[in-house]
Amino acid sequence: MNQLQLKRTNQSMAHQASSISSDEKRRIQSGHHRITRVSPKEDVVAFHAILAHQISDPSNNHVVKYNHVITNAGGAHYNSDTGIFTCTQTGVYVFSWSIFVEGHHFIFTDLVRNNAVIGSAQTGQDTGFSIAGSATVTVHLEVGDVVWVLVNRHGSGSDIQPYLSMFTGFRL
Amino acid sequence: MNQLQLKRTNQSMAHQASSISSDEKRRIQSGHHRITRVSPKEDVVAFHAILAHQISDPSNNHVVKYNHVITNAGGAHYNSDTGIFTCTQTGVYVFSWSIFVEGHHFIFTDLVRNNAVIGSAQTGQDTGFSIAGSATVTVHLEVGDVVWVLVNRHGSGSDIQPYLSMFTGFRL
Amino acid sequence: MNQLQLKRTNQSMAHQASSISSDEKRRIQSGHHRITRVSPKEDVVAFHAILAHQISDPSNNHVVKYNHVITNAGGAHYNSDTGIFTCTQTGVYVFSWSIFVEGHHFIFTDLVRNNAVIGSAQTGQDTGFSIAGSATVTVHLEVGDVVWVLVNRHGSGSDIQPYLSMFTGFRL
Repeated sequence: MNQLQLKRTNQSMAHQASSISSDEKRRIQSGHHRITRVSPKEDVVAFHAILAHQISDPSNNHVVKYNHVITNAGGAHYNSDTGIFTCTQTGVYVFSWSIFVEGHHFIFTDLVRNNAVIGSAQTGQDTGFSIAGSATVTVHLEVGDVVWVLVNRHGSGSDIQPYLSMFTGFRL
Repeated sequence: MNQLQLKRTNQSMAHQASSISSDEKRRIQSGHHRITRVSPKEDVVAFHAILAHQISDPSNNHVVKYNHVITNAGGAHYNSDTGIFTCTQTGVYVFSWSIFVEGHHFIFTDLVRNNAVIGSAQTGQDTGFSIAGSATVTVHLEVGDVVWVLVNRHGSGSDIQPYLSMFTGFRL
Repeated sequence: MNQLQLKRTNQSMAHQASSISSDEKRRIQSGHHRITRVSPKEDVVAFHAILAHQISDPSNNHVVKYNHVITNAGGAHYNSDTGIFTCTQTGVYVFSWSIFVEGHHFIFTDLVRNNAVIGSAQTGQDTGFSIAGSATVTVHLEVGDVVWVLVNRHGSGSDIQPYLSMFTGFRL
């Protein structure tokens, strides 16, 4: 397991916080550069993106812009500038998303297709521990349909923390 | 982003509770009517259902009947009256489910194939915050196999809360 | 619903703990024996494994060895001795994993492809309740690429609890 030994020499320990070390950041970056070069099969549509910065006290209409793209295969049209996935091939899609918050805060999010909620998630707790939560939705999309993660109600001052907040989707 | 502005005019804010506004209910409903009209590909089997009512203090043998069907594509046989998915095409399936509970309560659930547990999830916390949790399982099914989400041990008086409790599945 | 009556005769109730009864253990076992006999389609690659023992206070470099294999279809090369999935068919893969911890503890985990983090999860809370958390990642793999779940920072003495800790993956 030389890979692990190589990788984990400078890992901070036993530390309950949302801050990400420069080492962790580097590893995520290296994953990005490697993976996005290749498109595997013509008919696979899939994306995966990680939130790489904190979103401070978002409004209830805030679209979560998961900005660091790990996967965007087969012409998948996830736009990291807007946080919106646009369907270019009719079919059934699966979406999963995570939200990471610090202790004493909570965030509800919705998965929205056009102007309808098709699934919801929530995470948060009233102690000092941070916590992440996720949910998965399967839905039929037609060409032009758009899907995103939207902030719903949340505790005052509840920020969305980076790196453990992720958005992924693929066509069946 | 006119869609968002249209959609979010009447959203309640910063409110830690499991109750769902009539606005939210409407949006989920509209999603339903749109999506279930279309069956995308012959060979895609997929379903997605949301629990649209509270299940009060379920027994340990309670099958969770996610009753509001968003997706039931390709002849997927998820039955919202019983909460049971019946396999009609042999293959490998993926299932994901979420459970949403109020603060000071907890619920363990199992994903059951026939009479065997093939995965488990749990959520809950001993503070005033509600919380949702989810899990994902991949399993081979033969024709006639049945899969459902079952309540296992849970805190006395722990209810399953609606809308963030979801059940989704698809064939690979 | 005779299956349920048969199954749930000896279920412990309303008990917030991570210990698993022998009855639960048996049911998971029976699921295992049934499913791993059959390989469904030539081109489906999928696995699902459950952690069947506690991992006590793992180090930060610990690879989580989900040891009880429920599914390993289509020549999927998940190795339950090492916890490592090895890609033998280039393509886009989806991975989902869960971690279950007791109250007053927390664990961060990473999903690692070769030597890069491609996703992260965390669970834990500072009350007496145990809690499970999960996350999902979609990523392109080439032949020979390896993927595993790695313990990152965590609370001192935080163990990974069995049965609700799971690791699943499949090729799109």
